[in-house]
Amino acid sequence: MKIYDWHTGPYPARVRIALAEKNLQSRVSFVSVDLRKGEHKTPEFLAKNYSGTLPVLELEDGTLIAECTAITEYLDNLEGIPTLTGTTAREKGIIHMMSKRAELELLDAISVYFHHATPGLGPHVEIYQNVEWGLRQRDKAMRGMQYFDAVLKGQSFVAGESFSMADITVIGGLIFADLLKVPVPAECVALQAWYGRMNQRPSVRNRIAMSDPARISG
Amino acid sequence: MKIYDWHTGPYPARVRIALAEKNLQSRVSFVSVDLRKGEHKTPEFLAKNYSGTLPVLELEDGTLIAECTAITEYLDNLEGIPTLTGTTAREKGIIHMMSKRAELELLDAISVYFHHATPGLGPHVEIYQNVEWGLRQRDKAMRGMQYFDAVLKGQSFVAGESFSMADITVIGGLIFADLLKVPVPAECVALQAWYGRMNQRPSVRNRIAMSDPARISG
Repeated sequence: MKIYDWHTGPYPARVRIALAEKNLQSRVSFVSVDLRKGEHKTPEFLAKNYSGTLPVLELEDGTLIAECTAITEYLDNLEGIPTLTGTTAREKGIIHMMSKRAELELLDAISVYFHHATPGLGPHVEIYQNVEWGLRQRDKAMRGMQYFDAVLKGQSFVAGESFSMADITVIGGLIFADLLKVPVPAECVALQAWYGRMNQRPSVRNRIAMSDPARISG
Repeated sequence: MKIYDWHTGPYPARVRIALAEKNLQSRVSFVSVDLRKGEHKTPEFLAKNYSGTLPVLELEDGTLIAECTAITEYLDNLEGIPTLTGTTAREKGIIHMMSKRAELELLDAISVYFHHATPGLGPHVEIYQNVEWGLRQRDKAMRGMQYFDAVLKGQSFVAGESFSMADITVIGGLIFADLLKVPVPAECVALQAWYGRMNQRPSVRNRIAMSDPARISG
C-alpha cells in the first residue's frame, strides 16, 4: 500500500497513528506530497483525491481511499477484530460521533483558521482567504477544547474507556493547535493530562519518524 | 429509540432514509425539534448534542448518538449484516470516503450557503452570517454536483454498484439544494437520472410521512 502524505501534517498524522496502532507500518510506503509547494492542488493529485487533501491511501490494485475516517475504517477492518472504530453497533455509533465532533469542533476549525486567518501555506496556495471566518473558527476550536476537557473529566478516552479513532482525531486537533501556537486553555486540566498520556503512546510519539527511510529499512 | 429531528430537514432525511432502508421505522418515535424556533440551540438541546444539530438518536438506556454517519453506523450494525456501510474493509473505506466527500463538496456546502447567504432560519437563529463565505460554498456545491455527475456516469451508485450511505448523503445534498432552488446543472444528466431513481425508492419517497402519527399507527 502507498500513502500520499506530508510528514508533519496534522491530518496525515491521524493515519500514521492508526497505522502504528494496527502495527501495519511495514506494509506501506510513503509518497511525500509537499503541501508548501501546493502539490496537493495539482491536476495530477486532484485526480487521486477530488478534494485536494492529504492523506490518500492507494491499494495494490490502484484503489484510492481519501479521508482519514475512511482510511482508518479500511485499516481497522483489514484483518482481525476492529480496535479503533468499535465492534458493537453502540461502540461504532459513539466512536463515529465523537470523531466527527472532534473534526467539527476542533480539528477542522483549526484548519480553517490556518488557511484563512494566517499565512497558511503561502500566497500561491491560499488563493482565497476569509479572515473573519478563520478567526471565528479559531475561537470555535478553543471552545471545542473546553468541551473535550469536560468529556475527559468523566472518562479515560474521548469515546469512553478505550483508545479509539476519536482520540486520534482530537490528537490531530491538538497537533495542529501546537503548530499554530493556539494554546490549550490552562483550565483544561483533564484535556492536558489526557494529551500527555497520548503523547507517550509510541504511535503518537514516533509518527513523524515513521516515514524516515533509515527507520523503515532498519 | 427516539429520534430528535425535524420532518423536512435534509440532515434528518438522511437518518429517516437509513431507518426505512433497514426497516426499523417501527422501533423509533420522533420528537420534533423546531428549527425555525431555534429549539436546536437551547441549553437543553445542546446538552444532548454539543454541536446543536439535528438529528440525534436516543437509545433506551439514554445514550445519545448525534451525527448522521454515526447514527447510520449504529442502525446498520444493530442486527444482521450491514447493508449501508459496507462489509469488507474495502467497501467500508470507499463508502466512508464517498459519504464524507458528499458532505464536504455538496451537503455541508449547501448548508453553509443556507445559513450564511440566505435568511436561513431567521434572524434570531442566524446570529452571525458571513455572506461571502456562504456564496463561495454554494458555488463549491455546484462544482460538487458536477463531480458526482462524473462519478455516476461510470457506476450505478455513488460508492459503486450497490446503494449505500454515500447515496443517502448525496440525496441529502440534493434535497437541500431543491429546498433552496439551487438547480442541478442541466448538463448533469447522470446525476439527474440517478436522483430520479433514488426518488422512486420508498425510503426516499416516504421520508416526510414517516413521522405522521396516522401513518405510524396505520
